[in-house]
Amino acid sequence: MFQTVTKTLLVSSSSLVYRSICQSLRHYCNQSSTKLRVSEALAGAELGKNVRVQGWVRSVRPQKKNIFLHVNDGSSLQSLQVVGGAELSDPLLTFGSAVEVTGTLRKSPHPQQPVELGADQIHVVGECNSVDFPFKIKERHSLEYIRQLPHLRCRTNVFSSLLRVRSEATTAVHSYFKSNGFLQIHTPTITSNDCEGAGELFQVEPSGPDFEEEVNFFSVPAFLTVSGQLHLEVMSGSFSRVYTFGPTFRAENSQSRRHLAEFFMVEAEISFTQSLEDLTKVMEGMFRSTTEHVLAHCADDVGLFHKHVTPGHRDRVDAMLKQSFPVITYSEAIDILNRSSENFTFPTDWGCDLKTEHEKYLVKHCGDVPVFITDYPYDLKPFYARDNQDQPKHTAAAVDLLVPGVGELCGGSLREERLSLLKARLEE
Amino acid sequence: MFQTVTKTLLVSSSSLVYRSICQSLRHYCNQSSTKLRVSEALAGAELGKNVRVQGWVRSVRPQKKNIFLHVNDGSSLQSLQVVGGAELSDPLLTFGSAVEVTGTLRKSPHPQQPVELGADQIHVVGECNSVDFPFKIKERHSLEYIRQLPHLRCRTNVFSSLLRVRSEATTAVHSYFKSNGFLQIHTPTITSNDCEGAGELFQVEPSGPDFEEEVNFFSVPAFLTVSGQLHLEVMSGSFSRVYTFGPTFRAENSQSRRHLAEFFMVEAEISFTQSLEDLTKVMEGMFRSTTEHVLAHCADDVGLFHKHVTPGHRDRVDAMLKQSFPVITYSEAIDILNRSSENFTFPTDWGCDLKTEHEKYLVKHCGDVPVFITDYPYDLKPFYARDNQDQPKHTAAAVDLLVPGVGELCGGSLREERLSLLKARLEE
Repeated sequence: MFQTVTKTLLVSSSSLVYRSICQSLRHYCNQSSTKLRVSEALAGAELGKNVRVQGWVRSVRPQKKNIFLHVNDGSSLQSLQVVGGAELSDPLLTFGSAVEVTGTLRKSPHPQQPVELGADQIHVVGECNSVDFPFKIKERHSLEYIRQLPHLRCRTNVFSSLLRVRSEATTAVHSYFKSNGFLQIHTPTITSNDCEGAGELFQVEPSGPDFEEEVNFFSVPAFLTVSGQLHLEVMSGSFSRVYTFGPTFRAENSQSRRHLAEFFMVEAEISFTQSLEDLTKVMEGMFRSTTEHVLAHCADDVGLFHKHVTPGHRDRVDAMLKQSFPVITYSEAIDILNRSSENFTFPTDWGCDLKTEHEKYLVKHCGDVPVFITDYPYDLKPFYARDNQDQPKHTAAAVDLLVPGVGELCGGSLREERLSLLKARLEE
Repeated sequence: MFQTVTKTLLVSSSSLVYRSICQSLRHYCNQSSTKLRVSEALAGAELGKNVRVQGWVRSVRPQKKNIFLHVNDGSSLQSLQVVGGAELSDPLLTFGSAVEVTGTLRKSPHPQQPVELGADQIHVVGECNSVDFPFKIKERHSLEYIRQLPHLRCRTNVFSSLLRVRSEATTAVHSYFKSNGFLQIHTPTITSNDCEGAGELFQVEPSGPDFEEEVNFFSVPAFLTVSGQLHLEVMSGSFSRVYTFGPTFRAENSQSRRHLAEFFMVEAEISFTQSLEDLTKVMEGMFRSTTEHVLAHCADDVGLFHKHVTPGHRDRVDAMLKQSFPVITYSEAIDILNRSSENFTFPTDWGCDLKTEHEKYLVKHCGDVPVFITDYPYDLKPFYARDNQDQPKHTAAAVDLLVPGVGELCGGSLREERLSLLKARLEE
C-alpha cells in the first residue's frame, strides 16, 4: 500500500547499512519543559520539576473538580497518573487517544503509585473514536480476539509486555556472548547451503517479469538459511569463539506451537573444545544470564505473565536459578525411565529417541530443573558428532538441555575431527 | 553436505529460540593453568602466571637455542609472541597450524610488544600442510585472490579485521538505541507487505516435492522484506520509540558495490515528532556513537584499513567527529550547485534529484563533513512524507544525511498525519 523511494548505501568499513525513517508531526504545546518517558517519570526522574509526557490514554475519569488520566507510552507496563483541573477536560480525551501533557511531576498521595503528574496542559495529539476502537476500556480481551487485530494488538498489556521481554532477552543474549569473548557473525540469510536435508527449505527467486524463470538469480538455486552452522564452522577456523543470532527458516507444514516458518535462533561454535563441559557451561551460562536479566529488567511484564498466562511459573523459574543443572548420560536417563512406574506410550529401550513424555519425566525426576543429557546413541546423532568409541553401547559426544515446561532448549555436540573416522562414517 | 537433526523450541515467555552447537575435541595438554585469549594476554592479564593460549600459528622462527612463534586466535589483529627452548621444535609446527601453548606470561624485552609467552609446552592440535595451504607466510595476497577462498579468507588480517569491526559496529548500534529508550522489534523477514513497489522483490516458496505449486504456503504470495517500516509504524502506535536492525533484501540485478541482494539495515520510528530536528538528532547520534565506539574498540583493525585500504581516511573521520553536522535545505543546496564553477553532467534545476556528483560537491562545499539536506521537492518524496504546504517551491518534510566517501547514508521523513491531505494525494 505504501510506496517509498529509498536508496541503500554501504558504510565504508563496516558493511552495515543505515536507514532511519521516523514519523508523525502534529501540533504540540511549544514548551521548554523536559520531555520524559513514562518509565522515567515513574522512576522519579525530575521530581518537582516541569515535565512533558506523551503517550496513549489508558483511562479517563472526569470528576467535578478534577480530571484523572492514565497515560502509557510503551516504555513500561505501568501507566502514569495525570491529575488536572476540570477545565482541562476535552471531549476528545477518550480511551485510546494520543496526548501530550505538561505539568509538574510530584509525589502521589496514594500508596499504590510513587508519582503523579499535576497537569498544566493536556493536548490531544491524535483522536480515537472509542465506539469504533476494537478494544474497550477495562475489558480483558481474549488472545484469540486480539490476534485478529495485528495493527493494534501491541496496545494491549499482554503484547506490549511480550515485546519488551523479547527486546530485553535479545540484549541479554548478545551481552552474554560479548562478555564471554564471542565474535558476532552475521551469517547469510540467503544461502545455497543445506544444513539439514531437503524438503524443509524455502527457495528464493526474484519475482516480477524482469527475470527469466530458467536462470537462477544467484547462478545456483538459493534458499533461506535453516542454520548458520556451516558458516560458523568456517569462521571457527580463525576465531576461537563465534556466534550468530538471527532469523532462521523451516518450510514445515505444521500448525503446532513448536514449529514456526520463521524463528530466531542462537548458534555458537567454540574452537579448541576439550569436553562436553565446554559446551554445557556456555548453555547454562546463557540460560541463567538471559533469565536473570529479563527478571531484573522486566519484573512487571514477567509478573503479568506469571499472573495471567502461566500461574505458578515464577516459583519454578526461581527454583531453577537456585540450583545447578544436573548432567546425566543418555544411558542413565534410559535406566531412570525403565525403573519408573510410569506407563509411557513410546518405548524406552536403549537406542530409542527421547520423546516429549520421556523428557518431561526426566526433568521432573531431577527436581523440576533444567537437565543436560549427554552421550546419545551414535546412530541417533549426525555423522559429524564425535564418536566416543565405546561399546557395546556405542555413543557420540552430543548433549541436549531439557528445560521444564519447554523440553529441548539447546543441543550441541563435539565435532569429529579425526578424518579417518569421518570418511568411514560417510562411506557407511 | 552436512546433515544434522535438530529440533527448535520456544522459550516460554520470550519467543526466542536457542540452539547452541559447538565444536572440535582434540588432544590437549591436561593442565590447570588459566586459559587466556590472545587479546587478554596482550593486555597483560595474569602477568607472571602460568597460562594456556590456543590459536593459529602466524609465523615460526626456529633458532639454535630457541623457537619463536606468533600465535593468533582472532580476538585481536595482534599476535602473541611465544618463546620456547629448541627442544619444543616440532616439524608439525608450521604456518597455519593450530596450537595450544602453556607457559608463563611475562614482560617482553622488546619494546614493540608488551608481553611474551615463555613456553613450557607447545602442542600441535591441528596440522597444516604449508605446501597446500593457499596463503603463504609473509605474503600480502590481493583481495581478488582472497575472495576465491571463502572458507579460509577469515584467516587473513583484512577479513578478520573487517569481521571484528562489523561485530563492534553492531554492538554500538544496539547500544545507541537502547540507551536512547528505543525498543528493539524483530520485524518479520518473510512478509506479504511490499513497501517499495514491485520488481525488486524476492519471492519465497517451499522447495521440494511435498508442496503443490498452485497453493501458496502462507495462503498469500510471500516475499523477503525490503523494509520493516510498515511493521514499525504499527508498533509506533503504542511504543513511542522503536527500531529494527537486521537483514533486508532487494532483487536488484546490479553488480555495483552499492546494491546488494542482502544487507543489514537500521530502521527507527519515533512517535510524537515535532520537527525534522527530532530525526536529525537520532541520525547524528547514531553516526557519532557508532563511529566513536568502533575507533575506540577496534583501533588496530581500523588502523589496518586506514593504512592499506583507505589511506588518509582516518584524518577525515577525526575531522567529521570534531565538527557539528551542517543542515541545509534542498533549495539552498540547489543554489550552492548553481553558483559553483563545476561542470555537472546532470542538471541542477530546482526539482531535480540530487545525483552522486552533486552529493560529492555539497559535502566538499560544507567542509568534507556529513551534511543534512532537508525539505526536498514534494514530488520527489513518497506520498506519506509530510507536506510543508509552501509555495511556489512545494516541499515535503524529508531529510537525507550525506556522508563524505559514501553519499546518502540515512534518509527519513516526518509522516503526513492529516488524513485529508493523504487522501487527496492518493487520489492524484
